[in-house]
Amino acid sequence: MNRIRIFNANIITMNEGCEVTEDAVLTTDGERISYVGSRQDEPQGIKYDREIDAKGNIIMPGFKNAHTHSGMTFLRSYADDLPLDRWLNESIFPREAKLRDGDIYWCTKLAIMEYLTSGITACFDMYLKPYEIAKAAEECGFRCVQVGSMNNFSQSLELQEEWYNEINGKNPLSSYMFGYHAEYTCSKELLEGLSELAHKYNAPVWGHNSETESEVKGCMDRHGMTPVEFADSLGLYDNGGGGYHCVYVSEKDIEIFRSRGLYAVTNPGSNVKLASGIAPVSKFLKAGVGVAIGTDGPASNNCLDMFREMFLTAGLAKLKERDASALDANEVLCMAAAGGARAMGLNDCDCLDAGKYADLIMIDLTRPEMQPICNLSKNIVYSGSKADVKMTMVAGKILYEDGRFNIGEDPEIIIHEVNKVNKEIGEPSKA
Amino acid sequence: MNRIRIFNANIITMNEGCEVTEDAVLTTDGERISYVGSRQDEPQGIKYDREIDAKGNIIMPGFKNAHTHSGMTFLRSYADDLPLDRWLNESIFPREAKLRDGDIYWCTKLAIMEYLTSGITACFDMYLKPYEIAKAAEECGFRCVQVGSMNNFSQSLELQEEWYNEINGKNPLSSYMFGYHAEYTCSKELLEGLSELAHKYNAPVWGHNSETESEVKGCMDRHGMTPVEFADSLGLYDNGGGGYHCVYVSEKDIEIFRSRGLYAVTNPGSNVKLASGIAPVSKFLKAGVGVAIGTDGPASNNCLDMFREMFLTAGLAKLKERDASALDANEVLCMAAAGGARAMGLNDCDCLDAGKYADLIMIDLTRPEMQPICNLSKNIVYSGSKADVKMTMVAGKILYEDGRFNIGEDPEIIIHEVNKVNKEIGEPSKA
Repeated sequence: MNRIRIFNANIITMNEGCEVTEDAVLTTDGERISYVGSRQDEPQGIKYDREIDAKGNIIMPGFKNAHTHSGMTFLRSYADDLPLDRWLNESIFPREAKLRDGDIYWCTKLAIMEYLTSGITACFDMYLKPYEIAKAAEECGFRCVQVGSMNNFSQSLELQEEWYNEINGKNPLSSYMFGYHAEYTCSKELLEGLSELAHKYNAPVWGHNSETESEVKGCMDRHGMTPVEFADSLGLYDNGGGGYHCVYVSEKDIEIFRSRGLYAVTNPGSNVKLASGIAPVSKFLKAGVGVAIGTDGPASNNCLDMFREMFLTAGLAKLKERDASALDANEVLCMAAAGGARAMGLNDCDCLDAGKYADLIMIDLTRPEMQPICNLSKNIVYSGSKADVKMTMVAGKILYEDGRFNIGEDPEIIIHEVNKVNKEIGEPSKA
Repeated sequence: MNRIRIFNANIITMNEGCEVTEDAVLTTDGERISYVGSRQDEPQGIKYDREIDAKGNIIMPGFKNAHTHSGMTFLRSYADDLPLDRWLNESIFPREAKLRDGDIYWCTKLAIMEYLTSGITACFDMYLKPYEIAKAAEECGFRCVQVGSMNNFSQSLELQEEWYNEINGKNPLSSYMFGYHAEYTCSKELLEGLSELAHKYNAPVWGHNSETESEVKGCMDRHGMTPVEFADSLGLYDNGGGGYHCVYVSEKDIEIFRSRGLYAVTNPGSNVKLASGIAPVSKFLKAGVGVAIGTDGPASNNCLDMFREMFLTAGLAKLKERDASALDANEVLCMAAAGGARAMGLNDCDCLDAGKYADLIMIDLTRPEMQPICNLSKNIVYSGSKADVKMTMVAGKILYEDGRFNIGEDPEIIIHEVNKVNKEIGEPSKA
């Protein structure tokens, strides 16, 4: 068993908001935290494999990337600055159709490298070939909650049920949830089938929801209901779950989120870059709905950086409400870590406490953007960047430290393989 | 004389947009570039003090932070998440009034440290005590164009004229331009005096302009003109210059910018965080107006990061125009480097060419967010972060490399001094 002791630490446990405990100690025993607290009360007589002096740094729960398509790294910078329909139909779909066995495995590993540099310890991943994704994440030691992206063309109900049974319960790093791509890519019958499946397992259901105005309009035309109302009418939300994006939601939609205990995942970087709009995050919070933050995929964002998303979540809420006091940094920091964990069903990864998984990060406070030390949540949310991440630990194992990766694979090989996928699947777009 | 040779480089010279020259060589001789081009045509027989293998990296002109208040680092994270008027009147102004001799010197040095980590090689700085700012920048080896922030309460016409004469022409790292804080803090008589001064020296004039809706409304009420029309009516723009923010501008305002050859500096991070709005960057560009990018000060942004500002400049333009194809990455990258140089009068810092100042940066392409290599401008603008900056050189001198500073002062001392200022000038705000 691997035992690590971190001392001299300023710790944000997130047990109670973003309060900082100074001069604290955190110890791990294997995958889990064995102690967090004052140096005085620390259990004595334990031998550690490593002791880390965290002076000048902060320790906090890792960020949870609550919506992404990790395997799309091969399409980063491939087709930007195009209108959404041309981006999807001319550039993305034709390339995805060419993906071969093994491609997503490598592309997911590249995404995991980037997550670690941004202090992200788990992702909520919606993409193709779940076994490749699970293999990539487990080999890296990274935590990955997968979600189905069923639609009329791929990922049948049978496959979802197989993946649900095969992936859950095997490796604590891997789990699987039911999901559909979006209302506009699924027939009513398919969604009814998914609802049955969810009821059979008492399981939550997730999907892209109300990302664009035209999506909502299309659903109203087809079904006389918003995408949220429609999903709810089919019983998809009877066991919880939630939606990704949630930009164009009505008061009634928000009430459905509240009453069903659903989570809204906001993706501000993607929503601005694809000109989709600004999600009403303040309204969700005011209604008591849990909000988490995701980067969306690297083909649309294009980077997988929770610091950028946190700044955008706060900034865009202020812009939308025309009020600089809307949504403060503490709320955003909690969303990015504890909030994401709750949405993703990672109840043992939400905060730093004895018995919880040791999914945590160390942020360097000696960098110029983190000074002066006046309010740490604000420093992290408004000024933080990947450059400040000193260490990322998942399940008690340090996967990234001082710019170096410890993920069981040479980073150069991963980069080489993803460039090969990028080149073999199509000429770079000239757009 | 210091001579450096960089080889094996992918170079974006910005002589012609953002085209990349592969396997190129760049050499410096003292403060300036002596050669950029192919390895074949490189002058032979020169002895270099240092040779740098840039394999796996890109060399490009440094970013120019075209609007900032560097000395405000002591107020970072001090009073966020407050409405603009309370932020300014209850938190910022009372603290600034307490600043003592020497405080701005240290606070500026902390900002310069952060600029270097973000690949920024020059800033357009509007703050108090110009001699302290010039001293800090010159000691660090950093390029700083200062601009007056005259208003009814400080920075008289006499002082501006003194600073203009004392700072310009002494040290190539330092220059000074005439400027006023904003229309709403200056009497008409004061601005008329500034116009006379600008005419006397055939000099451009800068100021905050049309940052908020209420600013424009106030000016209309006072003078029956927009802030841009009003400044132009006083002759302030007869020798060029421009405005910071420029969020609420009319078609007529944009036409004044075009016909006078003015520059618009956009500050997207500050504009979202203070809920000000989104500047019509695409409209300025379409009209042929030069646009540059600034971070604004650390009390409002809160970080001084050109990567975040580039993403925001592109993303917010797309959001505003409701068109994902609005404003592409090449345009934004040019604005952030060459565009800023032109706005700031740094004609020898706009691109990489023999005879120009060696103000350049090296960006690490081996980091996961920079992969795959498909389109470098898009990688930098949409995925870049401070973590990718490997080296920052100003006037031929490497000031930042692999996380270490070479600015003639121990970074720990700078950080210590700024924390002292922060603590001595007031209790941290509880907001």
